[in-house]
Amino acid sequence: MIPEPRLCQVDLSSGTMQGATGRYQKKLKDLAGLYADAAAFAARVAEAGEDIVYDVADFHPEGKTGDLIFGVTRMSPGLVGDEFFMTRGHIHGRADRPEIYFGQKGLGLMLLESPDGETRVLQVAPLSICYVPPFWIHRSINIGTEDLVMLFTYPADAGQDYGIIEKSHGMRHRVMRDGANGWRLVENPAYRSRSPETIAALLHSAA
Amino acid sequence: MIPEPRLCQVDLSSGTMQGATGRYQKKLKDLAGLYADAAAFAARVAEAGEDIVYDVADFHPEGKTGDLIFGVTRMSPGLVGDEFFMTRGHIHGRADRPEIYFGQKGLGLMLLESPDGETRVLQVAPLSICYVPPFWIHRSINIGTEDLVMLFTYPADAGQDYGIIEKSHGMRHRVMRDGANGWRLVENPAYRSRSPETIAALLHSAA
Repeated sequence: MIPEPRLCQVDLSSGTMQGATGRYQKKLKDLAGLYADAAAFAARVAEAGEDIVYDVADFHPEGKTGDLIFGVTRMSPGLVGDEFFMTRGHIHGRADRPEIYFGQKGLGLMLLESPDGETRVLQVAPLSICYVPPFWIHRSINIGTEDLVMLFTYPADAGQDYGIIEKSHGMRHRVMRDGANGWRLVENPAYRSRSPETIAALLHSAA
Repeated sequence: MIPEPRLCQVDLSSGTMQGATGRYQKKLKDLAGLYADAAAFAARVAEAGEDIVYDVADFHPEGKTGDLIFGVTRMSPGLVGDEFFMTRGHIHGRADRPEIYFGQKGLGLMLLESPDGETRVLQVAPLSICYVPPFWIHRSINIGTEDLVMLFTYPADAGQDYGIIEKSHGMRHRVMRDGANGWRLVENPAYRSRSPETIAALLHSAA
């Protein structure tokens, strides 16, 4: 028996996908420690901690190596102090695995960081394809005023390592509101660079 | 040095992608032998053989295993006799590699065939994601009246084997116009089933 073909339908208004096999949701209160302004976060959680700030609907194939996971993610717009709503961010457990995001609705940024601390920012709008190459830590940020909806796909054997960002005490840069409609990068003073040994281990994690 | 992140912009009116690294085009005259009605094909080529009936713009990463190729494909609407315009079709050179198509514009079908001759048909419309699992031969067909535009992605080490369809004298089924707006599957009388040895070899081509 070989796996059956599958059709999934994306719904942009809800930011979800008919035919998904998995789904997870993050509430604002789940994101303690993510934002620079702890007092602003506590105030936001007091008023809207149960709000679902992002969710993911995806399809996982039966196979692993060589197969692909795909799905759709929806992120609410919002601010914690002057910092835009964002995902926790991750590098792949197999760090040499890439990911592709395809913007469908809203306006976002992909914040990328290399193991040795280089930062890149790509703007994701409808019909833009964001290629996250192997070895880049990445986090999605909603800088718009409506839901940000993106499709994504990555190798089924990639896995996610969320701890890499915790270990460096956040990503090197934060994305803050700048004026009414703008954004700017701000250095994260708590950031700790990775050691040469950690970097070497990441770059040699190829399968 | 690790690969640089990349942003590509899809243009639905032209069915192409800014930031692509590769592109190829098929003219109608390149598709000899594909359609059931050879006389209708010759007549079509005489009048419009130089027309580009489908094209592909894609991005190939530097890496191979574990990385992803992605791009956009545009297919013209049209008929050869009663048979809708279609791609040549392929299975992956590494047959255990999947492919994902994401409908963006127009109306199409994905015609799928397993090594042992099972047929599946998925309808691809805007916002539908078509998952082609490992081991399925697949061909795109434009059953609409405008361009069919789809995004696609597949593992960078997948490769394409176009010969598999030639060896079986076409796919087992053809998609023909049925009435003004419909379609139907028609058995291809020239089709030759694959031998048990060929099927076994395909199913055991895993990397």
